[in-house]
Order: sequence, then C-alpha cells, then structure tokens
Amino acid sequence: MVPSQLVAYSGRPERFLHLHFATPVWRHNIAEIMPHPHTDPAVFQAVITFSRQMGMVPIPLNKEQSGYVLNALNVPFLLAALELLVDGVADYQLIDKTWMISKDAKCGPFGSIDLIGITTAYNITRNIAEQSKGSAARAAAYLKEHFIDTGKLGVDVGEGFYRYPNPAYMAPGFLT
Amino acid sequence: MVPSQLVAYSGRPERFLHLHFATPVWRHNIAEIMPHPHTDPAVFQAVITFSRQMGMVPIPLNKEQSGYVLNALNVPFLLAALELLVDGVADYQLIDKTWMISKDAKCGPFGSIDLIGITTAYNITRNIAEQSKGSAARAAAYLKEHFIDTGKLGVDVGEGFYRYPNPAYMAPGFLT
Repeated sequence: MVPSQLVAYSGRPERFLHLHFATPVWRHNIAEIMPHPHTDPAVFQAVITFSRQMGMVPIPLNKEQSGYVLNALNVPFLLAALELLVDGVADYQLIDKTWMISKDAKCGPFGSIDLIGITTAYNITRNIAEQSKGSAARAAAYLKEHFIDTGKLGVDVGEGFYRYPNPAYMAPGFLT
Repeated sequence: MVPSQLVAYSGRPERFLHLHFATPVWRHNIAEIMPHPHTDPAVFQAVITFSRQMGMVPIPLNKEQSGYVLNALNVPFLLAALELLVDGVADYQLIDKTWMISKDAKCGPFGSIDLIGITTAYNITRNIAEQSKGSAARAAAYLKEHFIDTGKLGVDVGEGFYRYPNPAYMAPGFLT
C-alpha cells in the first residue's frame, strides 16, 4: 500500500506519509519514508529528522513506489530464487550458497524468505500471480504445498527452508 | 548461452558441458557447472571434482538454465534497481545504501553493475528489451545515454556509477 491509497481516511492529507522499517529494526536500521503527492515538504523533512533522532538511517523516496525501495528489490530477487527451485535447477541450499559466496552476503534468498516468514512470501507470490501470468503462480503453489500446509512458516516457528536457531547456512563449512 | 546451443560444434557431445566462474574468481570462488541433457554423468562428476581441486566451490546445476544460478538471480535484481533509478524513486546511492544495510551486504546493486561493467549490463538490458516489453528498454536507454556514450563503463575504466578505486559506498559513513 502506498500513502495515496489511505490518505483520504486521514483527514489531514498534507500531514500524511508512510514511515516503514525493516526486520530486525535494530540491526537493519533503515527508515523508508514515502510521501504522497500532497504531503507538505516540511512534514517530510520533519520525519527525516525524526528518523535520524531515533538512530535510523532515513531512506526518503522521491515518489510513491509499491514495495518502497527494499521490497522493490527483494521481490523480483526472491521470486527468481523460487523459480530456480521450482524449476528444479538447483536445491535451495545450493542457490543460497551461490549468492552468499558471490556477494559476500550473510544470508541467501531462502534464508531471507525464512526471516520474512513463509506466510508473507506466499501472500506476495499469490498476489503477483493473481495480477499476472508467469512463474509467481507456481512459486505460490510450491510454498503452499511444502510450507504453508505443513506449518513450516519460517524463523518465527523454528522451521522454514532451514531449521532454527542454527540454520545450516550459518554452520562452518556451508560455503565450502 | 547454454551447452545445448553449442554442443553440435564440439564433436564430442557426451563430453561437453559448461564450467562458469564469477568475478573476481579468487574471492567469489564458485564454479557453476551446467550439463546438457546428453552429457555423460561421469564427465559431470569429473568436472565437479576438478573444480574442488582448483579451490573452487562447485555449483552443479541439475539442468540447463539461462544465466546459470548466479545471473538468474542477479539479472532481475539489478533490473529492479535500474527501474527504481530510471523511475526517479531514489538515487543510486540511496538504493545501494538501502540494500547494504538491510542485507548486511558489502555492495549494493549499482556497485555490482560497476563491477560487472556497464557494457555487459547494457547488453543484457538491451537483449531483454528486444525479447519483451517492459522496463528493460528504459533501463537500456538510460545506461546508453549516461554511461556507454560517455565512456563511464565501470570499475575497469575507473568510473561507472561510482568512481574507483575508492567508491563512495566503501567510505566510512556511507551507511549512516
């Protein structure tokens, strides 16, 4: 949802905008700030300042964008990973390993999906699948069958693709 | 290109497959190994072993996949970043910062594009644009106007989105 979808309910359109955090907020301390076309620039500025005062790094967007910056990058990335898995090109650990080694990343796409939670990943893929043809429908069906229906919903419940609190991708030797 | 596009020229189809490295090879030491449907499994196995002997981490694919694993993830991810930039949602440093903080990553999408080289990024977006409608055409036009035509081709020439050898995204304080 972007601010202009909700602003009519606010009663104070010029003082309305969105402030959005990432997970976990204390480590990934970005504060994405998205105004709508009629947000007062002084209010936008005040929220940027407020974010800094909270110890966050402000990410002020110039305009409305579905998914803000982070999820506009994350969604096509995670969908591409699910596509490789569902197509049987490689298993999830091999895909994560490829990304982690090549990007010096602490976590691969399937570790990310577990952290976000399988339910959210499923809802997003299902939503995309409803709007367009393509691989999202198969990704959604895969997540439903293997994770949603079996209760393996990610980090929060102790199991998703990986088992927590000590997922295989954090084990010594995973990247070898 | 996948092996089955080239195998006819090899004269030894059952001994033919692709072995593909990442950049820079000594740090991002993956070896993606892609057989075609008629590659001898013993040859596939031998190349996996050979990759380990070279100090690489083998990434054996179960089947042919355009872009292997890494670029099948990379391309939609980088295209999404270019879309945000071209749409004017945020500037390239803000987009990189968002990704780097949220993913504990050492480099964001535009740092990656510089490393890959703008020429390659441009050729890929142009190629996708020719095959489909959508944002790739605008991304290609953007790269051509601002980088290809101005000679700012990435790390190799000392300038792309960032200037090298000390790009802004590596400076202390970038993630603040």
